[in-house]
Amino acid sequence: MGRPVTLFTGQWADLALADLADRARRWGFDGLELACGGDHFDVDRALTDDGYCRRHRDLLDGHGLECFALGAHLVGQAVCDSVDERHRAILPAEIWGDGEPDGVRTRAAERMKDTARAAARFGVTQVNGFTGSPIWHLLYSFPPNDFAAIERAYAQVAEAWGPILDVFDAEGVRFGLEVHPTEIAYDFVTTRNTLDALDRRPAFGINLDPSHLAHQFLDAAEFALEFADRIYHVHVKDTKRRLDGRRSILGSHLDFGQEARGWNFVSPGRGDVDFEDFFRALNRIGYSGPLSIEWEDSGMDREYGAQDALAFVRRTDFAPSNIAFDAAMRRS
Amino acid sequence: MGRPVTLFTGQWADLALADLADRARRWGFDGLELACGGDHFDVDRALTDDGYCRRHRDLLDGHGLECFALGAHLVGQAVCDSVDERHRAILPAEIWGDGEPDGVRTRAAERMKDTARAAARFGVTQVNGFTGSPIWHLLYSFPPNDFAAIERAYAQVAEAWGPILDVFDAEGVRFGLEVHPTEIAYDFVTTRNTLDALDRRPAFGINLDPSHLAHQFLDAAEFALEFADRIYHVHVKDTKRRLDGRRSILGSHLDFGQEARGWNFVSPGRGDVDFEDFFRALNRIGYSGPLSIEWEDSGMDREYGAQDALAFVRRTDFAPSNIAFDAAMRRS
Amino acid sequence: MGRPVTLFTGQWADLALADLADRARRWGFDGLELACGGDHFDVDRALTDDGYCRRHRDLLDGHGLECFALGAHLVGQAVCDSVDERHRAILPAEIWGDGEPDGVRTRAAERMKDTARAAARFGVTQVNGFTGSPIWHLLYSFPPNDFAAIERAYAQVAEAWGPILDVFDAEGVRFGLEVHPTEIAYDFVTTRNTLDALDRRPAFGINLDPSHLAHQFLDAAEFALEFADRIYHVHVKDTKRRLDGRRSILGSHLDFGQEARGWNFVSPGRGDVDFEDFFRALNRIGYSGPLSIEWEDSGMDREYGAQDALAFVRRTDFAPSNIAFDAAMRRS
Amino acid sequence: MGRPVTLFTGQWADLALADLADRARRWGFDGLELACGGDHFDVDRALTDDGYCRRHRDLLDGHGLECFALGAHLVGQAVCDSVDERHRAILPAEIWGDGEPDGVRTRAAERMKDTARAAARFGVTQVNGFTGSPIWHLLYSFPPNDFAAIERAYAQVAEAWGPILDVFDAEGVRFGLEVHPTEIAYDFVTTRNTLDALDRRPAFGINLDPSHLAHQFLDAAEFALEFADRIYHVHVKDTKRRLDGRRSILGSHLDFGQEARGWNFVSPGRGDVDFEDFFRALNRIGYSGPLSIEWEDSGMDREYGAQDALAFVRRTDFAPSNIAFDAAMRRS
Amino acid sequence: MGRPVTLFTGQWADLALADLADRARRWGFDGLELACGGDHFDVDRALTDDGYCRRHRDLLDGHGLECFALGAHLVGQAVCDSVDERHRAILPAEIWGDGEPDGVRTRAAERMKDTARAAARFGVTQVNGFTGSPIWHLLYSFPPNDFAAIERAYAQVAEAWGPILDVFDAEGVRFGLEVHPTEIAYDFVTTRNTLDALDRRPAFGINLDPSHLAHQFLDAAEFALEFADRIYHVHVKDTKRRLDGRRSILGSHLDFGQEARGWNFVSPGRGDVDFEDFFRALNRIGYSGPLSIEWEDSGMDREYGAQDALAFVRRTDFAPSNIAFDAAMRRS
Amino acid sequence: MGRPVTLFTGQWADLALADLADRARRWGFDGLELACGGDHFDVDRALTDDGYCRRHRDLLDGHGLECFALGAHLVGQAVCDSVDERHRAILPAEIWGDGEPDGVRTRAAERMKDTARAAARFGVTQVNGFTGSPIWHLLYSFPPNDFAAIERAYAQVAEAWGPILDVFDAEGVRFGLEVHPTEIAYDFVTTRNTLDALDRRPAFGINLDPSHLAHQFLDAAEFALEFADRIYHVHVKDTKRRLDGRRSILGSHLDFGQEARGWNFVSPGRGDVDFEDFFRALNRIGYSGPLSIEWEDSGMDREYGAQDALAFVRRTDFAPSNIAFDAAMRRS
Repeated sequence: MGRPVTLFTGQWADLALADLADRARRWGFDGLELACGGDHFDVDRALTDDGYCRRHRDLLDGHGLECFALGAHLVGQAVCDSVDERHRAILPAEIWGDGEPDGVRTRAAERMKDTARAAARFGVTQVNGFTGSPIWHLLYSFPPNDFAAIERAYAQVAEAWGPILDVFDAEGVRFGLEVHPTEIAYDFVTTRNTLDALDRRPAFGINLDPSHLAHQFLDAAEFALEFADRIYHVHVKDTKRRLDGRRSILGSHLDFGQEARGWNFVSPGRGDVDFEDFFRALNRIGYSGPLSIEWEDSGMDREYGAQDALAFVRRTDFAPSNIAFDAAMRRS
Repeated sequence: MGRPVTLFTGQWADLALADLADRARRWGFDGLELACGGDHFDVDRALTDDGYCRRHRDLLDGHGLECFALGAHLVGQAVCDSVDERHRAILPAEIWGDGEPDGVRTRAAERMKDTARAAARFGVTQVNGFTGSPIWHLLYSFPPNDFAAIERAYAQVAEAWGPILDVFDAEGVRFGLEVHPTEIAYDFVTTRNTLDALDRRPAFGINLDPSHLAHQFLDAAEFALEFADRIYHVHVKDTKRRLDGRRSILGSHLDFGQEARGWNFVSPGRGDVDFEDFFRALNRIGYSGPLSIEWEDSGMDREYGAQDALAFVRRTDFAPSNIAFDAAMRRS
Repeated sequence: MGRPVTLFTGQWADLALADLADRARRWGFDGLELACGGDHFDVDRALTDDGYCRRHRDLLDGHGLECFALGAHLVGQAVCDSVDERHRAILPAEIWGDGEPDGVRTRAAERMKDTARAAARFGVTQVNGFTGSPIWHLLYSFPPNDFAAIERAYAQVAEAWGPILDVFDAEGVRFGLEVHPTEIAYDFVTTRNTLDALDRRPAFGINLDPSHLAHQFLDAAEFALEFADRIYHVHVKDTKRRLDGRRSILGSHLDFGQEARGWNFVSPGRGDVDFEDFFRALNRIGYSGPLSIEWEDSGMDREYGAQDALAFVRRTDFAPSNIAFDAAMRRS
Repeated sequence: MGRPVTLFTGQWADLALADLADRARRWGFDGLELACGGDHFDVDRALTDDGYCRRHRDLLDGHGLECFALGAHLVGQAVCDSVDERHRAILPAEIWGDGEPDGVRTRAAERMKDTARAAARFGVTQVNGFTGSPIWHLLYSFPPNDFAAIERAYAQVAEAWGPILDVFDAEGVRFGLEVHPTEIAYDFVTTRNTLDALDRRPAFGINLDPSHLAHQFLDAAEFALEFADRIYHVHVKDTKRRLDGRRSILGSHLDFGQEARGWNFVSPGRGDVDFEDFFRALNRIGYSGPLSIEWEDSGMDREYGAQDALAFVRRTDFAPSNIAFDAAMRRS
Repeated sequence: MGRPVTLFTGQWADLALADLADRARRWGFDGLELACGGDHFDVDRALTDDGYCRRHRDLLDGHGLECFALGAHLVGQAVCDSVDERHRAILPAEIWGDGEPDGVRTRAAERMKDTARAAARFGVTQVNGFTGSPIWHLLYSFPPNDFAAIERAYAQVAEAWGPILDVFDAEGVRFGLEVHPTEIAYDFVTTRNTLDALDRRPAFGINLDPSHLAHQFLDAAEFALEFADRIYHVHVKDTKRRLDGRRSILGSHLDFGQEARGWNFVSPGRGDVDFEDFFRALNRIGYSGPLSIEWEDSGMDREYGAQDALAFVRRTDFAPSNIAFDAAMRRS
Repeated sequence: MGRPVTLFTGQWADLALADLADRARRWGFDGLELACGGDHFDVDRALTDDGYCRRHRDLLDGHGLECFALGAHLVGQAVCDSVDERHRAILPAEIWGDGEPDGVRTRAAERMKDTARAAARFGVTQVNGFTGSPIWHLLYSFPPNDFAAIERAYAQVAEAWGPILDVFDAEGVRFGLEVHPTEIAYDFVTTRNTLDALDRRPAFGINLDPSHLAHQFLDAAEFALEFADRIYHVHVKDTKRRLDGRRSILGSHLDFGQEARGWNFVSPGRGDVDFEDFFRALNRIGYSGPLSIEWEDSGMDREYGAQDALAFVRRTDFAPSNIAFDAAMRRS
């Protein structure tokens, strides 16, 4: 028997939670990772409406679904980002406000603290999300970057998140950064730098999503092994490269799902992530938390895909062993 | 006998032109691609100092060196870029001025027109360079991009370069964009879009540098074949991937040459570019212009490398044939 | 839910249609692609026996099976082939006649017209088949080919098929050439040439069978994308290369299934065709017709294989989506 | 319908046979390959206790399980090995005795004869096992080996096994060496040498286990084809390489299952063995014996794994065919 | 010091021998492999003009060039081919005659006998060439081949060549078939069959040209090892695959050198042949004859290429050794 | 200008040093790495014959050759090995003595101390060599290894070498273990263990020979980076894998150079070692010592090979750079 399998609700924002919960249970999921926003999980009401958490929990219980984590990606993104018009589309109106960047960042940081408080009240100890990055636009060093400034950006992110993490600590909740392009940490090097800048404080860990590593040619199993003590939560998502000399690995400024891109997200098990290897690494580091399917495949029917993904995880994940085999062949 | 081989002077800005010309000739180069800036080629003086072009040409002639093209990368970059502090370091003081972005862009555009005029006066019909890009920071679509806005960016670049190209046309000079990350065109898709936005006007072509394609997993030979009528100039430069599951193809926000990067520039012939294949494609499309070595390898002595690169090009490039072979076996 | 899955009856010619229909239904197929010949589908009787089509359709209906296409490969092959003794074995006696090549070709062409008429009468709008090729023996250019003559061969095929296609047009039926070695079109280049020679007339399209492309190292998904508007029908069949430096990709003049061959046909999903990728391409081009399993694997029990193949297609094919994912994360 | 699937009991020595038989049947196995030792199969008692074989057979029959082979690996290993302290742990006390190498080897040889006798009495005609090797420590030739001495070692093994095989012949039982590192035969070359040294006598064949070939980069299908007439029994077991430039293919003197090893045993179907190809080769050579799962995967729960492996074999193995396909398309 | 390097004159038929010899010597070749035809080597005159061989030899001696072999490819091709219009272009007028196939074949066979006689008179003991093939058009078995007929074709070739080889034997000359598509032998299987059909008579061996194997994915070094005692002569020629999913390995009925082909001939060392490995195999089998460059590269200037190829062979070929190395470290 | 290139004399033991020095100088080497034994370097005489070192040095000086290191592989091997008959062949008679293992080991250890003393007297601060290994025969864990015993073996080696290294320290000489199968350290894991067991004392470092890593699929460049501070000396030697599914990576108990082996030593640059990458890593860690060619290729003439190898190193090695390139493009 493998780990519990949950469904991340972010890609189903168009469905009411009750509807989605009904489907998830029918499909066989063990629980939901609730995306903050809409009626999936309302941080504000959780803190201000006394019965909200109870009713929300009842709804899940009524469908036999667990909840191990909240997803606070959209608001988290604004904490350290160069805020522009795109953020308006993903932020709650009260966080966006007048859109003045410093104000947006400040309000986003406060909301993240509230998210920790709401999670605690809801009985969840893990909040996943993004950090944003003040230096993403400097990805390719031309005009030549000032690398001292880049080093300082890690410190700047640590500074912005310090007070947020203090609240997480106070509430007994941990944050899991989804290592991802456009975030301060998106690969081995930047994750090391980010964790170091935060003095490796336990409140700040990783929501490990292998799909964001695969198109960078990074090995998710090695990632799990290196950052073993910071793997707090795991997403199951996949990417597929289609490099034929004409499609760029950089994406061509095309929307996800376009044929001419060098890679795209695909339903788990249909891409380049070696999940066999990845799950073995999770076994090795003793990760026993949920495998949370973040389902996204622009070429597949969503309902079909969610079930296909669940079946894939069920048949691929497995429990580790404690037996040394040749030893069993010895005479006792 | 292959094509003429020139040396791009941009990476030798610390040497006076006379010194560099002396070395280049000694090493066996056929000519120089002069980078605009310092004493390598001064656009301003070329237009204002009557004898400048004559003396400059004499200097090259005196070393038996030809000049087929100017390189105006740094100023070109500012024409359509989101201007920031990094541009101050690469722009002439009079272009940077007070650094106010719109002003910088306007002055850069004017300087590009002057560059065409100076080239004509100097007797050169090719100017290579960058365009900058207003959308490079949107490389990865999160927060989700407004793709209509991205489409508009191509039009915006075309609009900014239209008046510049009018001067190029008037002067009988052609511009060659070095297709490159951080520019409006960096791969097949974006090059198609850019050329289309400019109505494929002949004044705007490509300085094809395979090193900027290789780390994207793009095939430079196929690129030459597809954009055959727009390959106006060719750089010889190389990149080497070192992907071991821990090094990201995206560069990790590390400076070029750092060990932990997933790829780096290396001396031509020591990397992933298949120059045999690339030169064959250049033969096929009838390209007879220079092969201009833009030498950059953070792990190799520069003087050694320039000679090593030249020897590599000499032994790898070759002239095409007109004979169909089995036909030669027929009885006449 | 994916596309309907049918079974091509050509490899089951030893079984009476009623028997085969019974098995196909039991195994779970949605329909049959009837091979013309024997009692599977008799073109002659369909045109001369008034009740034939009705009874034939009833037989299928009685098993709950649909029919989307007829297969007229054997007779089609003779239309443009260099006819020799081998054709006697695959042609109806009345088409072979005395075996004089021109006569055979003429009778085969007439039978193809009748096939269109019979298909229309039977209520089917798609006929798949071969064209034959007058130049297959010139595959390798030694003694050196006269390439003008090769160009003329495409015109010659177009000429031979023109009158046939006129009948197809008149009957509202389309022809689907199975792109295949030994046919006038067997890869990208020859398919382009063939379609062009026929002025891309809509009556002439493609029955796309990826197995005939895979051993040529051709990408069936790219093929579907390039010829999107001519993909009229799809076969599901697979090939497996076994190249170890001693087995030739050319087949060694050995019969299919011999160990020493460099490739062989295998049951779908057990070979080199990337069906995931292929089915995605079919989704992208909007192909909603049947996936017709042409089952052939000299190393596997046929009954086992048909069911294995069906299960493979059912679990691999899927419906496309219309949702752009990150968009769903935006605030409405 | 494929071949019968059995479970080798060696890795389940901690379970009583009755218990294991109960599970095996429940999981769906067709039989057991009984490891000699403990209560799984007691050679001594089989020969000395008149009812033993009958009762043992009844136990299997009671669970509906067949037995096609015995496994006598541990004692076989001692016949030709350089005996040291490690052998004490795997040998019955009466074989180990005082541990003096010559005595151990002699007693092991006698026990192998008895194993043939016991197998015959039990109604089994196949005994699998190891031979040991007097030259394993000479694997890498430094200090330089005396290759004449190595040639002599094959003769020496043949000499030691001759009298044992005489008993096998007399009893109508065949021996199957599991080709394996640490045995006299572990690859193509050494297997040829060993069979030749034994004059290819039919009593001595192979228990083909592809997992011991895969990490050597050997092709199990080719192995089956070359030694077709000596493939007496087949193990289903798998290995997975994880070579990243830091993990050695030689194993680093680390225990199986350690992360830093270059390869490890994994549950069948989850490693590098191409079982599709391997089973096809078994079909081709006409092997119709059992597929015996020797289950070993230090990273997977054993109970889960046994069932996972069985399901894998059931869906991968299949029966061969006698039909030539295109032939079926000819007119009869 | 490696083997002598010669130039095959077939691709230089437009140059008079004296001219070509002059160039070859200047470029540094050790000798010429003379193609029969034109003034390179005239079989007729060699037999009828008493001084011809002497004068011809003097011409070569005068340039310090050796001759180890004649090339009789074009006439040889007609011996067993399905003769058609293409042969007219490659045959001497007196062999083509009226073009009636049987007559052409008979005259070609007689000319091959004369070629052996002429070679002997000229002092050369090796004649290379083609055999033609009566079954090349049956390469892909559709319509299904009669494989008994294919087996008979080997016998038919043996029969046709028997009387020719009798003359070769009588003259002390050996024939070397260039294993090649369109010939009776083009890979491992067909070469085995051909040699067997000829009872492996020593008069019939192989002119091994790795370029004809590489595009079939065949390993020339393994070929040399398997047919070691029949490697009578070696061509140095190369092919390059360019398989990108759109280019077929079968050649698309395009002329050599076309961009859209899946492979083309290229100057030695610039393609897929592993000459390092190949030359090592030649060392291993004790081949000490010439390495004869058959230069053909439709994308490279011929004069440049011949020299480039010679330099490549000189730096790649080397003499074998007799020393066992670690042995040298032992105390004597 | 790259690093000095020396020739290791071990494979030339049959030549007198004067003769070898003469050749080495003629070929263009910068120096010799003298193998202890015969007249190349006599440890005994160096300590007992007052003028020996002076005369020896004069001989080298007379040929303009330097000496940076001694090679003491054969005696070193005996210090921790399971001594058997093979050692007799590689040891001086006085070290072998009566061959009793403990005595041999003791005498070998004493000789290693003397070697340090002799090196110091000769003016050389680096001695390369082997350690032997008490556990090489336990390479594959069957019968199952006692891994605690394996851990103890590292300590045992450290204990044996401690007193030797004390002398090295006293003499100001460093030992460089050539990491190599049959030694205590042969890959990353075992090298870490060995260095740790010796408390990473500076007297004990590595003579890095990439050929011993390549056939294990280990990356020599990564090795240099990980053990940067212990890379005291570098060998240039190469291996070539030839894995075709029939050749084992383990060597098949065949002598080096046999065709059927899965890998063999080859002249540098002709095998699998990526020397470009390796030399770059040496630049990165600041290694400025000699590149010592240990020439061994059983398929190549030795004299040819030594020169070929030297030319390869000269054209592949290069000096590093200190310039950051884009930085050079900034305005000063």
